[in-house]
Amino acid sequence: MVNTRLDLARVRAARQVIDPLFLDSPSYPCAGLGAELGCTVSLKLETANPVRSFKARGTELIASGLASTGRGAVVCASAGNLGQALAWSGRSRGLDVTVVASRRAPAVKLERIRALGAELVLVDGDYDVACEAAAVISRERGIRRIEDSVDVETCEGAATIGVELVSGAARFDAVLVALGTGALAGGVGYAVKELAPEVEVICVQPQGAPAMTLSWHEKRPITTESANTIADGVAGRVPNPDALADLLVVADDAVLVSEHSITEGMRLLLDHAGLVVEPSAALGIAAILEDRDRFAGRHVATILCGSNVDMDAYHRWVGTVPTTAAPVDG
Amino acid sequence: MVNTRLDLARVRAARQVIDPLFLDSPSYPCAGLGAELGCTVSLKLETANPVRSFKARGTELIASGLASTGRGAVVCASAGNLGQALAWSGRSRGLDVTVVASRRAPAVKLERIRALGAELVLVDGDYDVACEAAAVISRERGIRRIEDSVDVETCEGAATIGVELVSGAARFDAVLVALGTGALAGGVGYAVKELAPEVEVICVQPQGAPAMTLSWHEKRPITTESANTIADGVAGRVPNPDALADLLVVADDAVLVSEHSITEGMRLLLDHAGLVVEPSAALGIAAILEDRDRFAGRHVATILCGSNVDMDAYHRWVGTVPTTAAPVDG
Repeated sequence: MVNTRLDLARVRAARQVIDPLFLDSPSYPCAGLGAELGCTVSLKLETANPVRSFKARGTELIASGLASTGRGAVVCASAGNLGQALAWSGRSRGLDVTVVASRRAPAVKLERIRALGAELVLVDGDYDVACEAAAVISRERGIRRIEDSVDVETCEGAATIGVELVSGAARFDAVLVALGTGALAGGVGYAVKELAPEVEVICVQPQGAPAMTLSWHEKRPITTESANTIADGVAGRVPNPDALADLLVVADDAVLVSEHSITEGMRLLLDHAGLVVEPSAALGIAAILEDRDRFAGRHVATILCGSNVDMDAYHRWVGTVPTTAAPVDG
Repeated sequence: MVNTRLDLARVRAARQVIDPLFLDSPSYPCAGLGAELGCTVSLKLETANPVRSFKARGTELIASGLASTGRGAVVCASAGNLGQALAWSGRSRGLDVTVVASRRAPAVKLERIRALGAELVLVDGDYDVACEAAAVISRERGIRRIEDSVDVETCEGAATIGVELVSGAARFDAVLVALGTGALAGGVGYAVKELAPEVEVICVQPQGAPAMTLSWHEKRPITTESANTIADGVAGRVPNPDALADLLVVADDAVLVSEHSITEGMRLLLDHAGLVVEPSAALGIAAILEDRDRFAGRHVATILCGSNVDMDAYHRWVGTVPTTAAPVDG
């Protein structure tokens, strides 16, 4: 038994609560990426759903739990994807959802949170400042606060991805998973280690936002002064001790990658898989690019965790430039 | 009962034969597209699999049938996707696969057919010339020839998409489906009309390759002299009478769209869904663009049938230009 806050029976039961729109996402080998990278690369596609990220697996659990206990309001801090997912899950269950986010979060994420009917509170700081503001709102209004990686549903929702990964016909040597607060990595890692402990679980974080990776290596929470990365979805500075404790149990390694590798990973996913992804979703490909020998000839799965990205920034990062006139030849 | 060559029991049984990699593809509403187009748009994503098109649903049936009867070789003509799928399905079953294709087919499709170990025979003409050449090879070598929309497995494989569409929680008003040889439209249309006859089945073809649409309206096969469209996957000139007869039973309408609408549809799918698709997969969005009033306020499903596209051509069509230097800002 893998000793974390998570529970395998609850993770399995979660499948009955989560809207099927978010379950059983595609998982398939991409030959073009494999040829480019010298290993077999399977993509777990968490972007082909109404909120374009994996986060709804967790918010479905949270919202249904709140609705069943008659609670009508909830607040969360979000880099953008958790808020969008909570707004989606809360809307159909009649919950009042408040999302606190950084003013610097991608416009597309903020717009979608508003479009889904949530109240959006913007703060001038980063994700960790938004967390503090959400705590204040929770106290002032007396409403439940959801915190990514702290509320275990955010981890157990993510764990359903891990169950799916190791329940298919494919046998993986390693799973590459984006590391931010630790909800995704801790959740996926838990399921993998429970069900297929021989599969290596490797967390990937940007060099510019390394708090959780440094903490994992030092085995104690290390807060960084700043976070500077285009991967806005994983740009935290303040690790949660419980999430770190879980990650120490389930992760085999935690590595850092450069911004250049992230944009190169995004470009490879566009060219070889036909997928626009947000920077956080390219962390796994970036990790292969930075250590090809480690993965040579192996079967590696990587979770494409989100695709909510401002297209102007995307084109700038990936090196494609939109033109006003699109010539058509027949 | 809907009277075509297809059989619902066989379509249901097909799910046991087709590799799960190709089944239960995502189907989800895309809010960005819906807001842009004034209706609810659900995408059925047939590109998130190892061959990046729906064609393997049919070739899995064909290859397993051939393997079970001890036949070791097969030939098909292909615009590119059928050949790639047959090569994929044949490889794991020890079949010798020969694919005949136009020299003008997208390089990425031809490369993938070769990479999957199939023999690739190139002809100077178009898809219908490739069909004639495949017939010659079949006679000379005494091997089974597979013809798209003629061999009923190609239609019944596609019909599994229709079963999935109408078996989910969503209720659609209309399904938009690309029309080429008629395998996809006839298959999906059959399943929809058997299981949810109230759902409108609308076929979409490019103005530059209208043979099947003209035939549907005239209720007799009409061959065109040429086919001129970027939608290489549906650029046939010679309708098959049996496929047309089926289509006359299951389709409610067949419409033509401009090249401009196709590239605009591709761009909308990139910007709002984060998906690179080949031109044929944008036909449904193109049809909405050309007749917004028809779809206003309705729930429309469109099948994204393939994403095998040369990226240089893609950027040219969609109006994004790759640059050599990709500046990164943090």
